[in-house]
Formats: sequence, structure tokens, C-alpha cells
Amino acid sequence: MTYCVGMQLREGIVMIADTRTNAGIDNISTYKKLHTLIDDGKSFVVAASAGSLSVTQAMVSILAEGIEPDFLDGPRRRLEDAPSMFRAAELVGEALAMARRDIGRTLDGTGINADVSLLLAGRIGNEPLTLYLIYSEGNFIQCQPDCPYAQIGEFKYGKPILDRALEWDTPLDEAVKVGLISFDSTMRSNLSVGLPFDMLIIPADRSQPQIRRRIEQGDPYFTNLSSSWGRLLSEARSQVPDPPFLKTGGFGK
Amino acid sequence: MTYCVGMQLREGIVMIADTRTNAGIDNISTYKKLHTLIDDGKSFVVAASAGSLSVTQAMVSILAEGIEPDFLDGPRRRLEDAPSMFRAAELVGEALAMARRDIGRTLDGTGINADVSLLLAGRIGNEPLTLYLIYSEGNFIQCQPDCPYAQIGEFKYGKPILDRALEWDTPLDEAVKVGLISFDSTMRSNLSVGLPFDMLIIPADRSQPQIRRRIEQGDPYFTNLSSSWGRLLSEARSQVPDPPFLKTGGFGK
Repeated sequence: MTYCVGMQLREGIVMIADTRTNAGIDNISTYKKLHTLIDDGKSFVVAASAGSLSVTQAMVSILAEGIEPDFLDGPRRRLEDAPSMFRAAELVGEALAMARRDIGRTLDGTGINADVSLLLAGRIGNEPLTLYLIYSEGNFIQCQPDCPYAQIGEFKYGKPILDRALEWDTPLDEAVKVGLISFDSTMRSNLSVGLPFDMLIIPADRSQPQIRRRIEQGDPYFTNLSSSWGRLLSEARSQVPDPPFLKTGGFGK
Repeated sequence: MTYCVGMQLREGIVMIADTRTNAGIDNISTYKKLHTLIDDGKSFVVAASAGSLSVTQAMVSILAEGIEPDFLDGPRRRLEDAPSMFRAAELVGEALAMARRDIGRTLDGTGINADVSLLLAGRIGNEPLTLYLIYSEGNFIQCQPDCPYAQIGEFKYGKPILDRALEWDTPLDEAVKVGLISFDSTMRSNLSVGLPFDMLIIPADRSQPQIRRRIEQGDPYFTNLSSSWGRLLSEARSQVPDPPFLKTGGFGK
């Protein structure tokens, strides 16, 4: 399993991806799921992936080679040549659908799933930052201010905190905190999501530096966040009034 | 969809079930999902159900009629005659598997799911209180002190709070609070889980009264819990230290 979240806010984009993959519960490894697809000084595009690792890697290779031309003797279509994030997402979706079709065919009847979903984030040239959620079939939706995040993989455990806490105007440092709390909740409930996490912060303001960080097992900030969040939740619970329809002091004592 | 949780603690059992059913997103109704199966003064057994409503109702009717005897001219097997909660769970599981087989056959090829899972709770005679999770196939597991709750239906959104907050020694009033917070998180993330909720508290101490309550839309306690939990979570978030790897004050300002 996997959990990745992308948050698109007024101040920029935050991407967090775990690195745990498993082929059965007895075969667990660490693989990077946050892939840099373009970083040429002008444009910057990354993708986070959830699902079949072989399909994801095939897709990345297909994109690196460039896709067959649209017409005879045309140039191979490359991500670097995409004139916009929309066209980049289209090309990535096409590569994903190709990889899934090829590998899916060999998996027919094995019960092994060849689905992959992606979060695609970044900017082409001077375009604004954009975040897409790309489905297994290659179609995609763009993240909008009304719901300033997208998730892939094991998303349910960590969704309530995002729904409550994230808004378009949430500052980036607050978003990082909320994102890591979301990962903490997911890790506790699903063993197949685990540290280390890869984190990337892309400020909307191009004069600000991007921040990349791998949060390893024992990372002091995450360890502290995880334990203080547990304590704060328990304090919050104690402040919620007791149900009036029960005798105070509990039962059966 | 549905969400039901059963919590078995030292002090007793708390069951909470929503009442929303839907046949497609445009056909939503309210049906009771917390069924009293035995209440004869000596024994008390309830079941909460998630999944196909027609299979659930067929199962309840099969149980009310009694199941075919095990041997020729034997008596029909009835829940009221079960000598233990284990035998009661077996009989309920058998009725469920029968209903699912009969109805499932007519649904073959329609893509409609005939699965149902159940929480079965209560006591037979002077036995201790017991909580079972019964799967669609009729097999079941018993809730144990190490993990003092079981969920059916849309369980993921509301699981993190249970994992953090519930222990065998949690008092019943605290458990009710935690259970309702779990429902609040689930309702926010999945529209097909909704008020009213049915709640039942069965104290382990037989001298204490059972409490039954339907929590309707606008219930003052639940409304207050929901809003104060949101506020307390937001206060808790503000107390988690900011990430040290970001400049304080955010980006892009």
C-alpha cells in the first residue's frame, strides 16, 4: 500500500509520500514514490505514485524515452516539450495508460492489480503552480481552492484531519504540520504505510527556495509531533462534555 | 453505506449504528440497523448490520421462523434456545449465510453485492457480555480486551480515534463520547453515513439499567460535541510545534 497527499494552497504546493511497498505482507521494501519528471531550471514537475510499482516504473521509463509521434516522421513526444501543465498531465496520463495496458495484459487472470494513480504537481515555465490527480485510466482532475488537496493510496484514515484543517489560505508550515498528522493517523491504522516519508515544498513565489526533506525513522520533529498530537487529542477529548444521558461517574462501579 | 461500532469494555458494551441506507446516491432512506434479536428478561441479544438491506431483513426473518432442524423430526432451531453466545453467533451466522446464498443467487451478474456483516452483542442467561463480529460468510470472531471494539461498514474514517482512545478500562461514558466522535469524523467524510444514530448501552453490572437512545438531527449533545470537537482539534493543532525545517512565518508572504 501507499499513502501520498498533495496540498495546493495560495502559498504553494506541499507533497508528502511514504516509501513503503509490499508484495504480500511478508515482502516489504522501501522505494521512492516521489519522482522528479522535469527540473530544467525553467519548469519543474514531480509525480507521486500509488499502486503497481512495475507499472509506475514502466511509465517513468516510457516518459523518459518519449512517446511515439502523433504523425509520421513527427518528433517523439517528450514531457520537456509540453507547453502547459495540462499537456504534461495528458502525456503522463497517456504513458500511464500504455504501461498499464502492456503490463496488465501479462497479469490477466493472476488477480494482481495493475492500477496506478498519480499526483502530478509543478509548473511549466511561468505558469501558475498546478496539482493534478491522475487516475489509472489516464484521465485526470485538477485540484481547486474549494478542496485544496488530493490523496492517493490508503487515503481514508488520514482524510478527516485534512477536511477539517486545510483551506486555500492555510500557510505552508501549517499545511506541512496537518499533512504529517494525516500521515501519523494513517501509519497507526495501516502497517503498509510507513516511514521514511519524502516531502517536497514548492512555494508559489519563485524567489523562495524549494524544500525537500526525507523524514526518516526517529526524525525528531515527526516523533515529537506524533507523541504530542496523541497527548493533545487526549486532552481535547477530556474537554468534550460528558454525555448527559449517562449517570456521571460511569456504570458498573 | 453504513457505519456501526461495538465497544466492549470492562464496564459493559456500547453499540452505535447509523440509520442511513442508500440504493444509489439518489435513493436515500432511514432504516433501523440495530435489531433486538432476544429480549426475554433472561437473555438479551442485539445485532447491528452493514450491507445488503434485503439480505439483512431475510436473515432476521429466518431467525424469527427458526432454522430447519439438524435431524429428522427435531425441533426448529431458534435463537431463544441457544445455550450460549457462541451458539447464538453460530445460528445467526448460519441464517446470514442462508439469506445471502438465496438472495445472492438472484443477484448473480447484476453487480449488486449481497454481502452483510454483523456485530452481535449481548448475553445468554448469566453468561458474561460478549461481542462478535460476524462476516458475510457466517464465520465470526470475538472481541477481546486487547482491541476492545469492532466496526462494520464504512470503518476507516472513524478508526484512528478508536485506536487512540479506547481501552478495556475506558469508562462507558467516555466510550460513548469516543464513539460519537468516531461517527462525527465518518459523517463528515462519507455522505452515506448519517443521522439519526441508534445507541445502546448494556452495563456489565446487571443491576444497572440498559440505556437506549436515538440521536436525531439537531440532538443538542451531539451538535455540541461535533462543534466543540472541531474547535478543540484546531486548538490542539495550534499547539503542535511548527516544522523547524521551514522558515517561521510561512512562505510567499
